[in-house]
Amino acid sequence: MVGIIMGSFSDWKIMAGVAEILEELEIPYEKEVVSAHRTPQKMFDYALSARRRGLKVIIAGAGGAAHLPGMVASSTTLPVIGVPIKSSNSIDGWDSVLSILQMPTGVPVATVALNGSKNAGILAAQILGVGDEEVAKRLRNYREGLKDLVEDMNEELKKSI
Amino acid sequence: MVGIIMGSFSDWKIMAGVAEILEELEIPYEKEVVSAHRTPQKMFDYALSARRRGLKVIIAGAGGAAHLPGMVASSTTLPVIGVPIKSSNSIDGWDSVLSILQMPTGVPVATVALNGSKNAGILAAQILGVGDEEVAKRLRNYREGLKDLVEDMNEELKKSI
Amino acid sequence: MVGIIMGSFSDWKIMAGVAEILEELEIPYEKEVVSAHRTPQKMFDYALSARRRGLKVIIAGAGGAAHLPGMVASSTTLPVIGVPIKSSNSIDGWDSVLSILQMPTGVPVATVALNGSKNAGILAAQILGVGDEEVAKRLRNYREGLKDLVEDMNEELKKSI
Amino acid sequence: MVGIIMGSFSDWKIMAGVAEILEELEIPYEKEVVSAHRTPQKMFDYALSARRRGLKVIIAGAGGAAHLPGMVASSTTLPVIGVPIKSSNSIDGWDSVLSILQMPTGVPVATVALNGSKNAGILAAQILGVGDEEVAKRLRNYREGLKDLVEDMNEELKKSI
Amino acid sequence: MVGIIMGSFSDWKIMAGVAEILEELEIPYEKEVVSAHRTPQKMFDYALSARRRGLKVIIAGAGGAAHLPGMVASSTTLPVIGVPIKSSNSIDGWDSVLSILQMPTGVPVATVALNGSKNAGILAAQILGVGDEEVAKRLRNYREGLKDLVEDMNEELKKSI
Amino acid sequence: MVGIIMGSFSDWKIMAGVAEILEELEIPYEKEVVSAHRTPQKMFDYALSARRRGLKVIIAGAGGAAHLPGMVASSTTLPVIGVPIKSSNSIDGWDSVLSILQMPTGVPVATVALNGSKNAGILAAQILGVGDEEVAKRLRNYREGLKDLVEDMNEELKKSI
Amino acid sequence: MVGIIMGSFSDWKIMAGVAEILEELEIPYEKEVVSAHRTPQKMFDYALSARRRGLKVIIAGAGGAAHLPGMVASSTTLPVIGVPIKSSNSIDGWDSVLSILQMPTGVPVATVALNGSKNAGILAAQILGVGDEEVAKRLRNYREGLKDLVEDMNEELKKSI
Amino acid sequence: MVGIIMGSFSDWKIMAGVAEILEELEIPYEKEVVSAHRTPQKMFDYALSARRRGLKVIIAGAGGAAHLPGMVASSTTLPVIGVPIKSSNSIDGWDSVLSILQMPTGVPVATVALNGSKNAGILAAQILGVGDEEVAKRLRNYREGLKDLVEDMNEELKKSI
Repeated sequence: MVGIIMGSFSDWKIMAGVAEILEELEIPYEKEVVSAHRTPQKMFDYALSARRRGLKVIIAGAGGAAHLPGMVASSTTLPVIGVPIKSSNSIDGWDSVLSILQMPTGVPVATVALNGSKNAGILAAQILGVGDEEVAKRLRNYREGLKDLVEDMNEELKKSI
Repeated sequence: MVGIIMGSFSDWKIMAGVAEILEELEIPYEKEVVSAHRTPQKMFDYALSARRRGLKVIIAGAGGAAHLPGMVASSTTLPVIGVPIKSSNSIDGWDSVLSILQMPTGVPVATVALNGSKNAGILAAQILGVGDEEVAKRLRNYREGLKDLVEDMNEELKKSI
Repeated sequence: MVGIIMGSFSDWKIMAGVAEILEELEIPYEKEVVSAHRTPQKMFDYALSARRRGLKVIIAGAGGAAHLPGMVASSTTLPVIGVPIKSSNSIDGWDSVLSILQMPTGVPVATVALNGSKNAGILAAQILGVGDEEVAKRLRNYREGLKDLVEDMNEELKKSI
Repeated sequence: MVGIIMGSFSDWKIMAGVAEILEELEIPYEKEVVSAHRTPQKMFDYALSARRRGLKVIIAGAGGAAHLPGMVASSTTLPVIGVPIKSSNSIDGWDSVLSILQMPTGVPVATVALNGSKNAGILAAQILGVGDEEVAKRLRNYREGLKDLVEDMNEELKKSI
Repeated sequence: MVGIIMGSFSDWKIMAGVAEILEELEIPYEKEVVSAHRTPQKMFDYALSARRRGLKVIIAGAGGAAHLPGMVASSTTLPVIGVPIKSSNSIDGWDSVLSILQMPTGVPVATVALNGSKNAGILAAQILGVGDEEVAKRLRNYREGLKDLVEDMNEELKKSI
Repeated sequence: MVGIIMGSFSDWKIMAGVAEILEELEIPYEKEVVSAHRTPQKMFDYALSARRRGLKVIIAGAGGAAHLPGMVASSTTLPVIGVPIKSSNSIDGWDSVLSILQMPTGVPVATVALNGSKNAGILAAQILGVGDEEVAKRLRNYREGLKDLVEDMNEELKKSI
Repeated sequence: MVGIIMGSFSDWKIMAGVAEILEELEIPYEKEVVSAHRTPQKMFDYALSARRRGLKVIIAGAGGAAHLPGMVASSTTLPVIGVPIKSSNSIDGWDSVLSILQMPTGVPVATVALNGSKNAGILAAQILGVGDEEVAKRLRNYREGLKDLVEDMNEELKKSI
Repeated sequence: MVGIIMGSFSDWKIMAGVAEILEELEIPYEKEVVSAHRTPQKMFDYALSARRRGLKVIIAGAGGAAHLPGMVASSTTLPVIGVPIKSSNSIDGWDSVLSILQMPTGVPVATVALNGSKNAGILAAQILGVGDEEVAKRLRNYREGLKDLVEDMNEELKKSI
């Protein structure tokens, strides 16, 4: 089970990409609005109970001074994947990226690309696939699909003038 | 009473500037190492009890993915002043600045310059000086001293060749 | 009483956020166009008379080479809150942020996020709330409202597919 | 088993931090110099054989135009953790960070902070800890140790003047 | 013969500029979608066979963590020209530029401006023109045309009010 | 007569370059420590009296939130040359550059390179040379000297192995 | 007489601001498309003949790798004002700003804000006003007009709700 | 024959890397100090006569507002390789990189990494190797040497603890 959290419903237009890819890879997930700054207690309860509630990976999306991924990571030893979001209050995404990526020694956040929600989902699957051969197999199939996609685009290119 | 907190003792070489200026302005303070990521519970206890314990302003210094000022601000309505620190794990200070400054609507942090610990102390005094004429007077004297300093430097310049 | 100033009427589309939040928190304010570069004398008169005229906090918004907050701060010991504005003459907001934030020792400006006018209003209220229990109470209520907002968004998220 | 790779022996002064933390957490590892640009074939052989050879996580450090983590990730479905290194040929670390972090959809790299080798090791342990309760327990102990560290620093701070 | 490659068909809206200029300069070319991350084996086959297949210059366009130009360069000694593309997953183009430009010693990529596909075509022609006087002549004519263009624009300017 | 001003005596180690070049070009100057933030009244008096006192150009150096050049420019119609200084409180010089360069319409500052004090002196001479053929002649001689310098360096290069 | 030059007619939509302000200040000017890279010889002829042809100040606008202002400055001792233009081939304006501003010792360019064409015109007038009391007077009037503008905006603000 | 030029003898400490690699690859070269800003006429003579004098590739190194590579490229149709140098007057190398890389359509510069002089030499060899099988062979040998280097480093790593 993967937990998907975000600081605001407006982040869902990006974070829906996580759900999409997890469904494609048949990995169950839950989703929740949890704000580091507006509901700090809820955030800590979420993080502290995560392993007990059966979560295996947490994916947290946030923009601007994006503290959610790092603060959740501070209260669980589950892997936390951070998705920097270029939200309306972000300076071209730099604040989101840096405040998620640059965690101090002891509390890592696995950071993916700006708005890279699909990759967050794939990374979660890869983490689960370490111990689950079935998931690993689905990932290999997904990768094969990427090759086909490239060949499709290649044909499209050949037809362009 | 002003609370000075920082995520690591190594930040003290910058944050000592807060203490220095508060002593010059005769404003009492306490100091504490509180880490957002390593001691999240202590951080929340600190923030939640701050007003009750008589604090009026909190000054928090942090570097890298600097979540301490914003997370303390999330659990108190006291003014929180953030000091971005160019620590060894910081990318030229940009991460510290952006992860303190770019707070979402609802939870502001009063951010000062990179490594600007003295200004954090002065700002705390200015906040206290809103309702305390004695502090306001000391600030005016401090300002007068700055003018004298400029004149001293001016004399030094005139003697330079 | 809070003073809201800005260098140009075009900044009002951002700075109106200050007025909005102050009204919500029942804090009186005045507003004025004051330009550091086009009306320097007016700016100094404003700053020098601010405390005498009963102002307790000044909130100054500016974009580009944003000197207004820092220059007002140079002529008053009241706390000055700076709002960096991503105006049409700004390089992605970096100039506004840096020219407000990076004040030299002795003259701090309490800087909030780029276009963070609402947070400037909340910070002003927090400063007033240090000595005014009634304002502090309204801030606590405002914070509670933020939690409700998160729960509302959470319900919206749960209904999304 | 964790695989630690880097493009140059000069990266070892940073990447040794991975080995250090893995030893502390009693997690076996292997280490290898593998260069994306100078030994592309070796890199692909390494990535393609990784799962078969029993690796569960790969940690790749690189600086400048840092292609090693992303290219290894392109040829395995194991989780790949990228450590951006501020090497001598890097522009303040920005090139290392961006060329590791900004992977296209389909091939994520779990990026940690600039020079954040220890956090890469901890993240690898967290990934292994998803399915290994013993490792999870060691991580909880490690976290407890961080709290003690903060209290030690706190005592040191209290004694400072 | 010049080889034009790109990681995605969506890059063609920029990379078509290469084809346009090569046709103007009467230089034959082939075009192909080749992805470093989704089809690494195809990429290597392309690079390893390039000289044998009669290619003299390779032009590779990519955005975000743009590894294609550098990885192709790692498996051929033909000159490789890199076109950083400001694609939808790029942070204002900085990631594309830095991950193409900052190659380590031993494996250069001749980098042109962000989205500078036409210049990539001209540079390829200049490389061919080193040993081909006919191409060099066409380049001189092209340059003369640029002067005429400036004079045309000048007349337009003179007529503006 | 050229006026050289700076916010702090510590800026003199850069600004001495202005004096050096003006002496070489036999242009009289005065120098003064004037701080925008610590002595705003002195700054305005300086600017307002500048033309009357016979100054023809003002050169102002400042670092960090560098308001001195722009604020002096706001109170005189003399040309003001700004020298961004990479002082100890500057973020790699970006704050100094942007807060001097990005002036709003109506009040320009002629900005030179970071720490470019000598060029500020030369620019002042060029401005004076518009109406003073003697100064223009000295500038032409200075330029000739630059060519000789290049030839000297060239000989040195030819001898290097 | 002021010379206005630009590398492309497309820059005129910005550079027209120079003409506008010079007309307002009754200062004669000429305008010309001159490209550093496409018509280098024309550029040098322009610069070398400028003083002889009666020009007193040259204003050059350019975007991207903006060499025009600096290269013109290399062949005249007249003051050259550079206008960095955020053209379509510019990375958010940073390339334009840095390649105009960061001139080496010996050859300054008086740089104004990004797209700051009006300020370039005013700066040219200020340079002419050093020796021309009539122009200086017009500049003082222009400045007075800026104050009126602020008061007009102030009234507009007072009427806003 | 390759031409190596630089704006100042101080650039030789970087540009010597070009000579070193060309000697290793047995490619003849000449070297010259040529300054875009201090000796513009010499620069143009150099560029205009380059092909006639038997040069096949020009490598130009420059720092700060680095106009030399682009301006040389404007007066020759030979391929010009630009080496951005992080000189003392450069802002962390960004100005050098951007003013060389971001050339307008029509006049490309083949840009290599910051301080990447060796790669400039290799790229020149690759360009010559398009039509010279002997040079191509030497490049393949050089590449093989890189693989050996990696294996040597690997052995060193294996011995490290």
